[in-house]
Amino acid sequence: MFRIFRLDEDKVLNEVSSRGSKRVLVQAPEGLRPYLKPMVDKLRELGVTVLLSGNPCYGACNLALREAEMLNVDLIVHVGHSPMVSSSRIPVVYLDAQYIVRENGCLERFKETLLRFRSLGLFSSLQFIGYLEEARKTLEEWGLKVFIGRGSGVKYPGQVLGCNYTSPLEVENRVEGFLFIGGGLFHPLGLSLLTSKPVMALNPLTCSLRDMRDLKRRYLRRRYASIVEARDGEVFGILVGLEPGQFRLGQAEGLKSLIESLGREAYLLGFNYLDASMLEAYTWIDVFVNTACPRLSLEDSERLSKPILSPAELLVALGLIRWEEYIGESSQT
Amino acid sequence: MFRIFRLDEDKVLNEVSSRGSKRVLVQAPEGLRPYLKPMVDKLRELGVTVLLSGNPCYGACNLALREAEMLNVDLIVHVGHSPMVSSSRIPVVYLDAQYIVRENGCLERFKETLLRFRSLGLFSSLQFIGYLEEARKTLEEWGLKVFIGRGSGVKYPGQVLGCNYTSPLEVENRVEGFLFIGGGLFHPLGLSLLTSKPVMALNPLTCSLRDMRDLKRRYLRRRYASIVEARDGEVFGILVGLEPGQFRLGQAEGLKSLIESLGREAYLLGFNYLDASMLEAYTWIDVFVNTACPRLSLEDSERLSKPILSPAELLVALGLIRWEEYIGESSQT
Repeated sequence: MFRIFRLDEDKVLNEVSSRGSKRVLVQAPEGLRPYLKPMVDKLRELGVTVLLSGNPCYGACNLALREAEMLNVDLIVHVGHSPMVSSSRIPVVYLDAQYIVRENGCLERFKETLLRFRSLGLFSSLQFIGYLEEARKTLEEWGLKVFIGRGSGVKYPGQVLGCNYTSPLEVENRVEGFLFIGGGLFHPLGLSLLTSKPVMALNPLTCSLRDMRDLKRRYLRRRYASIVEARDGEVFGILVGLEPGQFRLGQAEGLKSLIESLGREAYLLGFNYLDASMLEAYTWIDVFVNTACPRLSLEDSERLSKPILSPAELLVALGLIRWEEYIGESSQT
Repeated sequence: MFRIFRLDEDKVLNEVSSRGSKRVLVQAPEGLRPYLKPMVDKLRELGVTVLLSGNPCYGACNLALREAEMLNVDLIVHVGHSPMVSSSRIPVVYLDAQYIVRENGCLERFKETLLRFRSLGLFSSLQFIGYLEEARKTLEEWGLKVFIGRGSGVKYPGQVLGCNYTSPLEVENRVEGFLFIGGGLFHPLGLSLLTSKPVMALNPLTCSLRDMRDLKRRYLRRRYASIVEARDGEVFGILVGLEPGQFRLGQAEGLKSLIESLGREAYLLGFNYLDASMLEAYTWIDVFVNTACPRLSLEDSERLSKPILSPAELLVALGLIRWEEYIGESSQT
């Protein structure tokens, strides 16, 4: 019912015209690629040569700067994410892709559950961000206090990225719980790890509501098991994401020094996209440490048989902070 | 029995010492990564900081120049392939990885089959190149005439790459057939497509011999089906490999013009490693044309549901050359 994307094609056409771009690289995540043809056709009508990116694109952090240079384009059209990476020799037009959403009575179904809260913080990922204000209206009619935080480094109020939860955290003190509206459990799980307040995830496509507590607990148990396994690690591989928005060489170097100062071995390991077999082929590496995308530890860790720790989890494994400090509470495992 | 790799670690240590390298990126294909630790240890003893490449590395064409720049190293150690890509701002030490092989009576098992030929051209991929001279001795003792060609763009006599068969083709006129010694069927299939003479593949690890004729016929039938399917294609995606040794933008541009001149649509599509779902998400592309690595059409085409044609196959699909011209004989399908 909601599966209609709104692509603001006019924005792209205006930008292309006003810049006089002749050769444009269009980049989009897999799920949006089927819908690009109308925009491509309009660009061609303007006399523009359109090139496509075939590489994975999981976020604004995968900005195809290198591809654009090699393919000699004068503009990147990056579809589906809001701006994140700055400083480029090649200009970038970011094009939101949002679902066209309409309140279809889905919230109503969960009225009883949601009315257990007196106040809620709403948040979402970009695709469903247009739904938040409509949801706010409904919830406020029910007598709830609703807060939508303004984060830093995101475009819209209430918007989160897998590596940026500043929007909901801004209103954390004012709410009893959080409601995520959008697809998947990655983003609400991410917030639930940063707050001790309840987080619920409403998927408006399937009209299902999920309390994140169980998943958080299960996730933390898995993380804890990884940390315990990592304690005996002798050789650490610190993952350095080579995509523009994931590249944290300084942080990786710092972690390397820290590990070495404790008498263990550490190697920086550059990569673009997680390929479990390519990493694990370094059979003599015991533990991976992830400085790239939080998604790796959150969602992709099951594809690796070795522990893959976040920097904070590494500190726990090395005995530098306590698990309780890391999870911010003492009764979770 | 043959699973022992010879890595010439001294060569690397000498190069690193003489250049005064302080920070070295080690890059190797998946299969060799487990064996790198002794070399890494020796480099560390020299006071060198070792970094590792986590990206796939299928050949010398995947040279980690960009990684090396981003990770700020002063030398790349590229393990497992011989030099192919030139012109780099960062120096590269190529380190052969060859199996230590010894005649173990495997050839003897196939004496009868091999003695049907009076003359054979031997060839191999880098890993087994050390076996060729020993095999030559045995075959010559049996009375066979043996030729090992000297190709261009390869390091050793008889050596082939997936995109370079100049070694065996140099001796094509002097032999009745070819014998490949090595693992896999990719390289012998590649030669069998370029010659009408019989090609046999001896795998010394499993001690099995395979006549490539059946596989060639089956492969050509599949290719032909792809070509037929591609004839109706309206929208073509021309794959441009962004890895240093696969980057053929000029060729891709030429094919694009050709396709457009025939009234069809064509888009250049940049990518680093084949990810079928990422390419196929462009659901409005009917046919892919591969200018990157021949392996894509040979081995990976089954991972794509859309036709993926080589440039020559594209010409057949567009009706510009005949299938018989392409396969070099008229009785193969």
